[in-house]
Amino acid sequence: MSHFIRQAVEKMSGYTPGEQPQVPGLIKLNTNENPYPPSPRVAGVLKNFTAESLRLYPDPLAVKLREAMARKHGCKLENVFAGNGSDEVLALCTRALVEPGGSIGFFEPSYSLYSVLAEIQDVMQKPVRLNADFSWRMDAGYSASLFFLANPNAPTGIQYPRETIRTFCQKFTGVVLLDEAYVDFADYDGTDLALELPNVLVARTLSKSSSLAGLRLGYALGPEPLIAALYKIKDSYNLDRLTQELGCAAIEDGDHLRRNADKIKVTRAYVAAALTQIGCKVFPSATNFLWVEPARRSAADVFSELRQRKILVRYFPGPLTGHCLRITIGTDAEMEKLLVAMRKILAGT
Amino acid sequence: MSHFIRQAVEKMSGYTPGEQPQVPGLIKLNTNENPYPPSPRVAGVLKNFTAESLRLYPDPLAVKLREAMARKHGCKLENVFAGNGSDEVLALCTRALVEPGGSIGFFEPSYSLYSVLAEIQDVMQKPVRLNADFSWRMDAGYSASLFFLANPNAPTGIQYPRETIRTFCQKFTGVVLLDEAYVDFADYDGTDLALELPNVLVARTLSKSSSLAGLRLGYALGPEPLIAALYKIKDSYNLDRLTQELGCAAIEDGDHLRRNADKIKVTRAYVAAALTQIGCKVFPSATNFLWVEPARRSAADVFSELRQRKILVRYFPGPLTGHCLRITIGTDAEMEKLLVAMRKILAGT
Repeated sequence: MSHFIRQAVEKMSGYTPGEQPQVPGLIKLNTNENPYPPSPRVAGVLKNFTAESLRLYPDPLAVKLREAMARKHGCKLENVFAGNGSDEVLALCTRALVEPGGSIGFFEPSYSLYSVLAEIQDVMQKPVRLNADFSWRMDAGYSASLFFLANPNAPTGIQYPRETIRTFCQKFTGVVLLDEAYVDFADYDGTDLALELPNVLVARTLSKSSSLAGLRLGYALGPEPLIAALYKIKDSYNLDRLTQELGCAAIEDGDHLRRNADKIKVTRAYVAAALTQIGCKVFPSATNFLWVEPARRSAADVFSELRQRKILVRYFPGPLTGHCLRITIGTDAEMEKLLVAMRKILAGT
Repeated sequence: MSHFIRQAVEKMSGYTPGEQPQVPGLIKLNTNENPYPPSPRVAGVLKNFTAESLRLYPDPLAVKLREAMARKHGCKLENVFAGNGSDEVLALCTRALVEPGGSIGFFEPSYSLYSVLAEIQDVMQKPVRLNADFSWRMDAGYSASLFFLANPNAPTGIQYPRETIRTFCQKFTGVVLLDEAYVDFADYDGTDLALELPNVLVARTLSKSSSLAGLRLGYALGPEPLIAALYKIKDSYNLDRLTQELGCAAIEDGDHLRRNADKIKVTRAYVAAALTQIGCKVFPSATNFLWVEPARRSAADVFSELRQRKILVRYFPGPLTGHCLRITIGTDAEMEKLLVAMRKILAGT
C-alpha cells in the first residue's frame, strides 16, 4: 500500500476493456465494433485536414459539432454535451451529480463500467439484480442519486418497453442516465424523455453505429442545468480538432449510419435464427450483438474453442453471465464462419 | 440551485480557457501556441492514415506511444502515463492521489486550473503566495497531499533553481507534480527527480513545444505505483487512434522540436530586449511567452489597445497578476508588429 495513493483507488482493480489482440486473420466479434467503414464524408474530411492546424487549440466548447448534434436531435446547443467517448460522459455524471454520501444504481448484469465508476468516486453502489430472463423488477422505495440504465441493455441486448422506461424516469427521484450506446439498432429511443424531464440524460456514442470506436466521441442530451454542470467540470479541451471535425462529418451523414445499421439488423436476424436452429438460446437483441446460451457445451468451453479457431467473442465469467456469450454482429462472411465453427463445436467434431 | 447537481459543482464557476476567436488577420499571442507547424512526420502519418481503421477501438494502454515516450526519457513503459492533454493528467492526479479530507497546494500566481481542480474534487486548497518578484518562500511545516508545482511557472515564465526544486521534492511529505508544460524552452528539467523519488511526477504536454495543442496529448513520468494508480481510474480508451499515431511521430522527431524551441528562444531574447528598451519590465522567461509589466500605461489599457490593433495577448485581472501581460512568442514577423504597436501605445500615439 502506497500512502501517496487514495485508499479507494488502491482497493479497486479497475475496468477491464475487451481484448484488442493483434492476431492476423482473427475474426474479432468481442467489442461490438461495426464491421463496416465509417461514412465516406469522414474519410473526406480526414484527407483534407491540414496537420498545421493542429498547432492551435481546439474549440473548448465544440460548438460546430454540438450544433450538428442539436440539429440531428431537434434540440438546442445547450442540451448537448460532447465528450471523449461516452465513457467520459458517464464518468463526468458520477462527478457532477453524486454527492460524497450519495449512491449510484444500475442493473446486474449491465455494463460493468458503472460499478467501477462508483468505486472511483467512492460512493455507495445500489445494484438491481435482474430476473433470470433479464427482465426488470425493482423494489418499491428504491432510490439512488444517479441510475445508469443501459437501454438496450448490455451484455443481454434486450431493450425495455418504452412505457416502462417513461414511467420509471417520471417517478425516479434521482437522475436517470439512459445509456443508449446501441439504440441505433433498436426500435425506439429515449431522447424525448431527456428533452422533456428535468432528471433524465441520454448518452450516445459514435463507436458502434457510426463505426468510429477509434475516434472516441460520445455525447449526452438533456436538460440545460445538467449539461451545464458537466461543462463546468470537464477537462478544458476535452475534444481534439480532428475528433470535432470528423465527428461532425459523421453526425451529418445519417443515411450512412441508417444503411449500416439496417444491414447489421438483417445479419443479426439471420444469425439468431441459425443459432436457435442448432439449439442455442438466443435472447431478443436490439443491438449489434447477440447474447447466446450455447447448447450442450458450457459458454467457457465454446469461448475457448472459438478462440482456437481464431474467432474472438466475449465471455463474462460469473453467476449472472457465465452461461452465455456475447457475440458481435460482423459481416455476413464473418458470421458464416462463426456459424460453421459453432455447428462443429456444439456437435463435438 | 438544482438538487440533482453536487453542491460543490453548483458553487464553482469553472476554468476559463483563453479565447479562441475567429477573427481574420488576428495576431494570436494569448494561449502560448507554437507559431511553427508540427513535425513533417506528423503530417506524413496523417496523410497515410486510413479512415477505415477508426471503426476499431484504440489500444487502451497506448503501448506503442508510451514506448516512444519511454525511449525519449530513458525509462520504462511503466513509468509513463499518456493522457488526453496534460489537463487529463492533472485531473487524474487530484482523483487518484488526494483523499476526501486531503489538500492540494500550488503557488499564487500559477496555472489557474489547479484551484479549479481542487474545487471539483472538493478538497482543501493550500495556496502559497509568491513574493512580489514571484520568487518562492514557504512556511516551515507547510504540507499538502498533492502540490502542483509549475516549473517554469506560468504566467510568470520563471524557472526555479534546480537545487531548490530537488530539496523541496526530497523533503515534501506529499506528492509533488512538477508541471513542465514549458520545459523545452528552459534550461533544465526534472525528469531525474520523477524517476528517482517515490513522490514526484513530471507532467509534459505536446501542446507547446511540439506544436500540437489541437491534438490533445500530454503525459506523466514517475514511479510505477503512482502511474499505475492513474491507469486504474482513467477512462478506458482515453486516447484515440489518431492521437496515438500522430503523437508517436511527434515524440520521435526530437530534432524538429529542438529547432523550433531554439528559434523561439532567439525571438524571445530579442523581444525581451526590445520591450525593456521602451521601459517595460520583462521577467526572465524560461518559456515560450514573456511576462511583461508595461511602462506608463496600465496592463488592462495596453491589453485593450493591442486588441483594437488585432493583437491578442493574455491579461489576468487581479491583485497578483493585473499589472502584467502574458505575451506568447510568435513568429519574428508577428513580434515585430507587436513591438511596433507597443511603441505606439506606450508613447500614447
